[in-house]
Amino acid sequence: MEFSANQIADLVGGRVEGNPEVKVSNLSKIEEGQPGTLSFLANPQYIPFIYKTNASIVIVNEDFVPEEKLNSTLIKVPDAYQAFARLLEMYNQMQHTRSGIEDQSFVSSSASIGKDCYVGAFTYIGENVKIGDNTKIYPGCFIGDNTQVGKDCLIFSGTKIYADCRIGESVTLHSGVVVGGDGFGFAPNNNSYDKVAQIGNVIIEDHVEVGSNTTIDRATLGSTIIRQGVKLDNLIQIAHNVEIGENTVIAAQTGVAGSTKIGKNCMIGGQVGIIGHLNIGNDVKIAAQSGIGNNIKDGEIVQGSPAFGLREYKKSYVYFRKLAQLAEDIDNLKKQMQSLQQ
Amino acid sequence: MEFSANQIADLVGGRVEGNPEVKVSNLSKIEEGQPGTLSFLANPQYIPFIYKTNASIVIVNEDFVPEEKLNSTLIKVPDAYQAFARLLEMYNQMQHTRSGIEDQSFVSSSASIGKDCYVGAFTYIGENVKIGDNTKIYPGCFIGDNTQVGKDCLIFSGTKIYADCRIGESVTLHSGVVVGGDGFGFAPNNNSYDKVAQIGNVIIEDHVEVGSNTTIDRATLGSTIIRQGVKLDNLIQIAHNVEIGENTVIAAQTGVAGSTKIGKNCMIGGQVGIIGHLNIGNDVKIAAQSGIGNNIKDGEIVQGSPAFGLREYKKSYVYFRKLAQLAEDIDNLKKQMQSLQQ
Amino acid sequence: MEFSANQIADLVGGRVEGNPEVKVSNLSKIEEGQPGTLSFLANPQYIPFIYKTNASIVIVNEDFVPEEKLNSTLIKVPDAYQAFARLLEMYNQMQHTRSGIEDQSFVSSSASIGKDCYVGAFTYIGENVKIGDNTKIYPGCFIGDNTQVGKDCLIFSGTKIYADCRIGESVTLHSGVVVGGDGFGFAPNNNSYDKVAQIGNVIIEDHVEVGSNTTIDRATLGSTIIRQGVKLDNLIQIAHNVEIGENTVIAAQTGVAGSTKIGKNCMIGGQVGIIGHLNIGNDVKIAAQSGIGNNIKDGEIVQGSPAFGLREYKKSYVYFRKLAQLAEDIDNLKKQMQSLQQ
Repeated sequence: MEFSANQIADLVGGRVEGNPEVKVSNLSKIEEGQPGTLSFLANPQYIPFIYKTNASIVIVNEDFVPEEKLNSTLIKVPDAYQAFARLLEMYNQMQHTRSGIEDQSFVSSSASIGKDCYVGAFTYIGENVKIGDNTKIYPGCFIGDNTQVGKDCLIFSGTKIYADCRIGESVTLHSGVVVGGDGFGFAPNNNSYDKVAQIGNVIIEDHVEVGSNTTIDRATLGSTIIRQGVKLDNLIQIAHNVEIGENTVIAAQTGVAGSTKIGKNCMIGGQVGIIGHLNIGNDVKIAAQSGIGNNIKDGEIVQGSPAFGLREYKKSYVYFRKLAQLAEDIDNLKKQMQSLQQ
Repeated sequence: MEFSANQIADLVGGRVEGNPEVKVSNLSKIEEGQPGTLSFLANPQYIPFIYKTNASIVIVNEDFVPEEKLNSTLIKVPDAYQAFARLLEMYNQMQHTRSGIEDQSFVSSSASIGKDCYVGAFTYIGENVKIGDNTKIYPGCFIGDNTQVGKDCLIFSGTKIYADCRIGESVTLHSGVVVGGDGFGFAPNNNSYDKVAQIGNVIIEDHVEVGSNTTIDRATLGSTIIRQGVKLDNLIQIAHNVEIGENTVIAAQTGVAGSTKIGKNCMIGGQVGIIGHLNIGNDVKIAAQSGIGNNIKDGEIVQGSPAFGLREYKKSYVYFRKLAQLAEDIDNLKKQMQSLQQ
Repeated sequence: MEFSANQIADLVGGRVEGNPEVKVSNLSKIEEGQPGTLSFLANPQYIPFIYKTNASIVIVNEDFVPEEKLNSTLIKVPDAYQAFARLLEMYNQMQHTRSGIEDQSFVSSSASIGKDCYVGAFTYIGENVKIGDNTKIYPGCFIGDNTQVGKDCLIFSGTKIYADCRIGESVTLHSGVVVGGDGFGFAPNNNSYDKVAQIGNVIIEDHVEVGSNTTIDRATLGSTIIRQGVKLDNLIQIAHNVEIGENTVIAAQTGVAGSTKIGKNCMIGGQVGIIGHLNIGNDVKIAAQSGIGNNIKDGEIVQGSPAFGLREYKKSYVYFRKLAQLAEDIDNLKKQMQSLQQ
């Protein structure tokens, strides 16, 4: 689709300077702007690029006054970054407007599908499943028996949700996410293991986003719970009976072992490992690749494997890098000491 | 489904104390028990909860004598934990009783499917595939040409098994597992790489369980082998020509590089990395996040990256945390030494 | 299929010594050779095995002269390893000769599919998708709207490519790969987060291979780019706007955070974490499990978390292992110093 500068100015409440009829069909970064694209300038460091960019339209702050000749039409708004973000969001919403149930899908007769939903081909909807209004389920997904999915969700191709789970409203699950696989529970029996049946479920609350190929295991009993607003990146492992507090954000490839509870508003880096049965407080920050073996109090910032205070870790690491030198110093001191003692 | 206290007492060989007609349709932890659920009390630490729980039925040890008034009907058995575990297992088995080949699946004319199997919609069964009796393959799976799967397996939605692999009996593969992808083999050729064809396969023996989105690569030549009773958690990487010994258990997100052999009855933590061409003995324990760069003998317990003895690692780490202080001590000693020498 | 020694000698331009009619139907390592298999001998260390192997045919270097009696027919060639690799490659290509569009697939009317392509059942091809000649797409894949895939690609079962992506020629994507999921971008808004729309795409150039369940996120704006000849192992995370230079090789479970640029011909070990917005030079080597927090210059070799020079890391780690002893030495020195000072 194409939009003219005038149309975009209307959408974002801005004022056109330049050719109001110039049209764009895509977005670009200002430093990579091509003809036919729309860009924005918010950060003053990027001002030099506006004189070189080939973007057809650039959204700028009201107070921007060009000091050289421009190739681009400007749209002036009170906050260029915000206006651009709003456009991005509109553009994005336009991507997911499909509705209807494609012929080659499988929907159990006992399932109920809300209004304006999309169910793609090769998606399987089990018995007694309930799907809320305006939820879009892309091709090749699996929703197990009795699972409920709220309204306004986006479930991308190849997501698998086992039976009996609960997914809230406005939840986004990316391709390859697995929700509700069995927790890793085995009881030793001589030299082999008996499986411990995993009959709980997974509850994902509203406004959660889960990245591609992340796995969230069902609880042994009760529920594994992902609270409202949590954002999980790709390839994360959430074990059985874990609970993750509201608006906590976790980067890619982190793993949380069974029954650990993580508080609200935490920020957890990539490739972190957290062992089972811990309590992680609210507002905790954990540096990437850390290993967490103990409870963490509210507001702490930690690093290391096992992790301790971030500052202390960084200090220790400075000397770790000099460890060969320190060892040589000790050796010298020992020799000097010996000769003094003699 | 609902069960009365009397019916459950019959199933587990117990005796009802209370209302034999009260019905339950789900299970709960005693501290979270809701009406209509069945719970159990085995650990004496949880005794206080039995006086508060709303679980309709609680399974208890024969010798339990309540000291306060109870809301719940009791079922008394010799071993409450075992009785509950048996019920869990029965409950779990009831989940996977589907059979038949759903219309929208694809089964090659040369494939053979055993008795009482389930083949879900959108599952693809390649040429000459053999599936044993009572194996359940959920929707959206792929079984490549010539692959054989034994009896009593559970293959969850979205599992992909490449051609020519062998899966034993009573194997469970969770959603998104990939068995038999090409090993990562490339031969340098000037500045680029030529692919080394990967024409081996994967053999998974009996009673193995593999967690969601775990990947097991085929051998370059010969077989990647997962021995009987092995349990692999989610998001694990097993490279080409690896062999994992009987009843070894590996936690999530661990990776094992090409041609490494791991012994029997090992316990390997999460996010461990093991380089290629190593021999890891039997009964080895590896702490989470360790990096293994050398062979490990039977029974060793290691930690660190690169890993060494767990105790030694913990000792070194104590001093790593104090390293800034140690460096200051050295600095002071040097100054004192200098002034003494003068 | 079976091949006689004569037929194989013709294929590789070799000369038969022994029974030219003996037939093989599979390949083996020389130390595991069974009747009916073909093996090779290139490394002189393996010479003892040629006198014991049961492989029916062994490819050897021209200058090999047996010193004992052999069970096997020999095929003599100038370079046994190369000849065997060529046979492997031929064998492998024979695996992927299917063509045609299977009935139970979904191909949008606006999509174009080249000559000699294979589109497996339950694969979904979106609107305006273009698939080049001789590309094989296995069952259960998803190719989103407007995505283009070049010729001679192999896309294994269960791969998901979101809308608007570009895949080059001779690209191999293994099962469960996700290309083009949203980048992990959220703007803080009080205590919760607003999603930053991710409207860029992913570009994968020619001759790239991507391992099972690896995820490559789309750019926020612009493109995430995987340059020609890159090889990615399984379960790798590539975040939004990352660029990976030509012929760089990355081992399993490594993660690269947003907007980082990696140079050409790098070798990156498994389970490495690289934070966002970095520049990694050309010909860089990074040891497994390292954590990269700073730019790296061309040709550097690093280890550690955070990483520094590989040699320095190894030196420091030697003393880390002795840290308890060093601490005791310091303690002794302090006591000696005190008594001297008195």
